[in-house]
Amino acid sequence: MSRKPTLAVVGATGAVGTVMLQILSQHADIWGEIRLVASPRSAGRKLAVRGEQVEVLALSEDVFDGVDVAMFDVPDEVAAQWAPLAASKGVVVVDNSAAFRLDPDVPLVVPEVNPHAARVRPRGIVANPNCTTLSMIVAVGALHAEFGLRELIVSSYQAVSGAGRDGVETLRRQLKLVTGTELGTSPGDVRRAVGDDTGPFPEPVALNVVPWAGSLREDGWSSEEMKVRDESRKILGLPGLRVAATCVRVPVITTHSLTVHARFEDEVTVDRAREILATAPGVVLFDNPAAGEFPTPADVVGTDPTWVGRVRRALDDPTALELFVCGDNLRKGAALNTAQIAELVAGEFTAG
Amino acid sequence: MSRKPTLAVVGATGAVGTVMLQILSQHADIWGEIRLVASPRSAGRKLAVRGEQVEVLALSEDVFDGVDVAMFDVPDEVAAQWAPLAASKGVVVVDNSAAFRLDPDVPLVVPEVNPHAARVRPRGIVANPNCTTLSMIVAVGALHAEFGLRELIVSSYQAVSGAGRDGVETLRRQLKLVTGTELGTSPGDVRRAVGDDTGPFPEPVALNVVPWAGSLREDGWSSEEMKVRDESRKILGLPGLRVAATCVRVPVITTHSLTVHARFEDEVTVDRAREILATAPGVVLFDNPAAGEFPTPADVVGTDPTWVGRVRRALDDPTALELFVCGDNLRKGAALNTAQIAELVAGEFTAG
Repeated sequence: MSRKPTLAVVGATGAVGTVMLQILSQHADIWGEIRLVASPRSAGRKLAVRGEQVEVLALSEDVFDGVDVAMFDVPDEVAAQWAPLAASKGVVVVDNSAAFRLDPDVPLVVPEVNPHAARVRPRGIVANPNCTTLSMIVAVGALHAEFGLRELIVSSYQAVSGAGRDGVETLRRQLKLVTGTELGTSPGDVRRAVGDDTGPFPEPVALNVVPWAGSLREDGWSSEEMKVRDESRKILGLPGLRVAATCVRVPVITTHSLTVHARFEDEVTVDRAREILATAPGVVLFDNPAAGEFPTPADVVGTDPTWVGRVRRALDDPTALELFVCGDNLRKGAALNTAQIAELVAGEFTAG
Repeated sequence: MSRKPTLAVVGATGAVGTVMLQILSQHADIWGEIRLVASPRSAGRKLAVRGEQVEVLALSEDVFDGVDVAMFDVPDEVAAQWAPLAASKGVVVVDNSAAFRLDPDVPLVVPEVNPHAARVRPRGIVANPNCTTLSMIVAVGALHAEFGLRELIVSSYQAVSGAGRDGVETLRRQLKLVTGTELGTSPGDVRRAVGDDTGPFPEPVALNVVPWAGSLREDGWSSEEMKVRDESRKILGLPGLRVAATCVRVPVITTHSLTVHARFEDEVTVDRAREILATAPGVVLFDNPAAGEFPTPADVVGTDPTWVGRVRRALDDPTALELFVCGDNLRKGAALNTAQIAELVAGEFTAG
């Protein structure tokens, strides 16, 4: 078929959906019609995409008529219901919820790491990894291809927009309450200032860090930490990979950072690791501490690549590398990777 | 000797010195005279300690006349010059700079972990560890005593007061510039708002995290990361301990947090680890995620203990534990541990 495929964006009005529309406006214009879909509450609103105002449609079976590819960014339970329904109508669904990521019949795809996986999709669904995994896996995948990964020990510094618009508004509200005061130096004063207004977070996040993201799983692990383990294993095709993650929310608006301790099969050298990272697609090596160069969220936000700095070999383990990695959690961590998968799939239509 | 020993507080006007005076006012009153010392710039000011206003003296040789114990919190180069001089006059110096921590003739002491070490001090100096190491070592030391530590992989979430008053004022200034705006969502907007006003930090710290603390050492490591390795080894008496640290500054006023991946000689159990942590002196186990219980800086600031939560056994390594640890970097991380060492030493005078 040589016509341009039709795309639906489901969840177009959310924090990630908004970035999806920006990306569709910036990328090569490979799509025919772009249909915007959201909950009935948002239907009728008009949003800009590719320089045009497009009316938002309420989610229904009919909106998928004639659609080739749909990008979903909706809550897990909405995706669980609607993605199979859209797929049953012949739509290839690229889903950014957690509903299908570990389904053995659903590929979990990062185009720089395992693009081939997107072609085999028995359920008509391709899953997009979670934002914390995505913020580091392109860099880790490039190193794995050369050195053979054995173990990942990671700690996250997760931005509040990972919890959606409510997360961003909560931090902005709390910052107004604590800024210009002496708060943050006495027991409980930040908590008293913020009160119960913690939004989607279990504790105040302004002037604080909160070692929790997601829901409680077995043995004290959070769902976010389990996602990093399970999704890294699936994307890299390493079902026995040792992974230990601790996920922590920090008062940053957008861009997740992670410290990564990566242990490989054999000895590694920093020089070779830097060569790999400097040339890996989707990665920017920004690593010259003598010149004050290392990535921080303030500089990475709004950009596409995975930024890597602080590359060191462990002093006491010649098989391990230390990295500090930043990635925009709304772009590569969500909307961008989803759009990249959708573009991979679209290539099948236009090549066909 | 049964008289109460005389104490000098050198650096009494700084961020840590201020907390030292609070602690001296709160603890059992074991001291005779307390002499306050600072740079000539601060001499003549009066500060409250034990409910009295005490005039600050300018640092000179004479101020150490008749002093038994001195707590130093001054820059490394000032300590390097003045601590040996005070010691030569018979003063036992408890020094919170980095100048002597790795000197084989200077013990590096954490009273809950290696109190015996304080008694052997060939140079008349006892060193206080750096705040990042101190914020986790009491908990790690308790687990080591039972399980035998083999490897530490830690990431820090360090408060700005670790960089002194200038660090705190810098964050407060930057927060005023970025609060109430849409900053933090576009590339470089936080940097533009903050300009070159980054204070003691290499990058803006408001709405950001900065993977750097201290100065550049070999092979890309920061001095702070090397301190965590070298000091942990010395305190625990494990010169071959494998340690990999990544130190990151976060927009928190006071209280350092760390994620800790600790690998031990043999298999560990979470139940036994929790028993140890629940009864270890100087440690509070606060770990019930189902009830929203884990430590955060906002609740730990101003308290003495090392708070531990998120205790998990690594899913893929039965010899490793994951912890999230918080400690007030000005109290246990600096002033409190220094005061505890001084009190240990004072016990020799009063017992004598």
